[in-house]
Amino acid sequence: MTTIAAIQFQSLHDYEKNVKKATDLVKEAKKMGADVVLLQELFQRDYFCQVEDYDFFAYAEERRTSPTLAHFRKLAKELSVVLPVSFFERAGNCYYNSLVCFDKDGEDLGLYRKSHIPTGQCYEEKFYFRPGDTGFKVFKTKECGNLGVAICWDQWYLETGRLLALKGADCLFFPTAIGSEPVLKRDTSRHWTNAICGQAALNIVPAIASNRFGSETINGSTMIFFGSSLIANEEGNILSQAKKDEEKILIASFDFEAIREKRRTWGIYRDRRTDLYDGILKGDLTEEGK
Amino acid sequence: MTTIAAIQFQSLHDYEKNVKKATDLVKEAKKMGADVVLLQELFQRDYFCQVEDYDFFAYAEERRTSPTLAHFRKLAKELSVVLPVSFFERAGNCYYNSLVCFDKDGEDLGLYRKSHIPTGQCYEEKFYFRPGDTGFKVFKTKECGNLGVAICWDQWYLETGRLLALKGADCLFFPTAIGSEPVLKRDTSRHWTNAICGQAALNIVPAIASNRFGSETINGSTMIFFGSSLIANEEGNILSQAKKDEEKILIASFDFEAIREKRRTWGIYRDRRTDLYDGILKGDLTEEGK
Repeated sequence: MTTIAAIQFQSLHDYEKNVKKATDLVKEAKKMGADVVLLQELFQRDYFCQVEDYDFFAYAEERRTSPTLAHFRKLAKELSVVLPVSFFERAGNCYYNSLVCFDKDGEDLGLYRKSHIPTGQCYEEKFYFRPGDTGFKVFKTKECGNLGVAICWDQWYLETGRLLALKGADCLFFPTAIGSEPVLKRDTSRHWTNAICGQAALNIVPAIASNRFGSETINGSTMIFFGSSLIANEEGNILSQAKKDEEKILIASFDFEAIREKRRTWGIYRDRRTDLYDGILKGDLTEEGK
Repeated sequence: MTTIAAIQFQSLHDYEKNVKKATDLVKEAKKMGADVVLLQELFQRDYFCQVEDYDFFAYAEERRTSPTLAHFRKLAKELSVVLPVSFFERAGNCYYNSLVCFDKDGEDLGLYRKSHIPTGQCYEEKFYFRPGDTGFKVFKTKECGNLGVAICWDQWYLETGRLLALKGADCLFFPTAIGSEPVLKRDTSRHWTNAICGQAALNIVPAIASNRFGSETINGSTMIFFGSSLIANEEGNILSQAKKDEEKILIASFDFEAIREKRRTWGIYRDRRTDLYDGILKGDLTEEGK
């Protein structure tokens, strides 16, 4: 059995406070029995991408010298937990929305760079991040199965979940920063929940999303993040979901071997018609697109 | 606005009774305001595929001479409703699990042959049907939008929903025959519901599934179909769902233009990373598969 925790907290402006809060919650999750702890997307800061500001590029860290990664790598080893850690990455002249996964012994299992980059009011990520070039990543842990991890906007793409599942993911992890923007006057939390559950149900793989909560104001712009972090089982049923405005550690245990057996007995992967799917590599298949 | 009805009834062994029942329910749905009426998969018979029996190939009809299609084409025109009609198709030496969609004026909008064919206890479809060769089909109606229609097992494949959406589907329709097989001792109705809602949420397109209900015994084998037909909106929220054991007409209206606008404002189709999706054309992307 692998026990998974998903963390939900309010990220503040102050880096030190956020790292301390995340550290405390990971320790707490470990006490609750967690083998793997999912933290939020870019939890070290407020969600600076809600506005376009050149100054915020200073937040980026290089993978090799990142104090953030060094801290959480040490924490993973100390506590013996698997930790996928989202961070703002600088690599030469390029900037990415990235993630490194640390195994229980602190081993760096690899880097993932967010593939799908949003833009538009409150989510100005195309201003900051080059679209990821790593492809989708499944991290093979020594004791906790194969963990497919993608980042926020990636979770809305059924291609993300499918590719991770085809690469052998036992579980899908989605560190997230999503809100009910006052500007856009939409509460997308149910739609978001259905999308996560859909990824789980359609791939027959559990899906876990960890989101921040609370109001953040940057340069006069305000967003309210809707929390609602959740753990869905391989049938897309919600096992546990946080409220919209609470600090929370969600926890659930999975028998990845039994779930793999369920996937096999379903036969869905057996009967895929890969000869009919090439249209998925196109942006548009309407007559206008021809 | 387009008003859509989904029919759920118990298919009996007798062809005439099933066709009469379907006809009556389509008429009833029309009275309720339906523009499009979805009937179940292979509603003309009991679900003969639960067993392998050469005699049942006699049920197949040729598209051009099919009395079933002629009847429902006439009905579509008489009532001025769009009717996607599932049928067991014979074409030369090949047999398919097929569907023809009739427009309100009775025009034949085209043929779809089920792409994903299941096999295994209670679902011995690979014994009867050649996997479809038409690709996924969106039927362009004159007044009721572009209707993406796929058949039962197809609905479990996120590739189905995505390809239909890329082809411009305003709505996904899934005629179905699925049950909680006593043999397999599993109730998959929630998983199934989550899969349908996932197709809707992840593509931002409403999804409608019409399933049969009740117990059917053929050659000593028994299945109980779980009904639970449903209409989900473009966020994956269930608008209406039938019980497991009732005859039912579900109905809902959609503004396809407004939903298209919602898809646009989400930007999900804008940001697809088609350069990263080629793995979807493979059966397996694990190291063992290399």
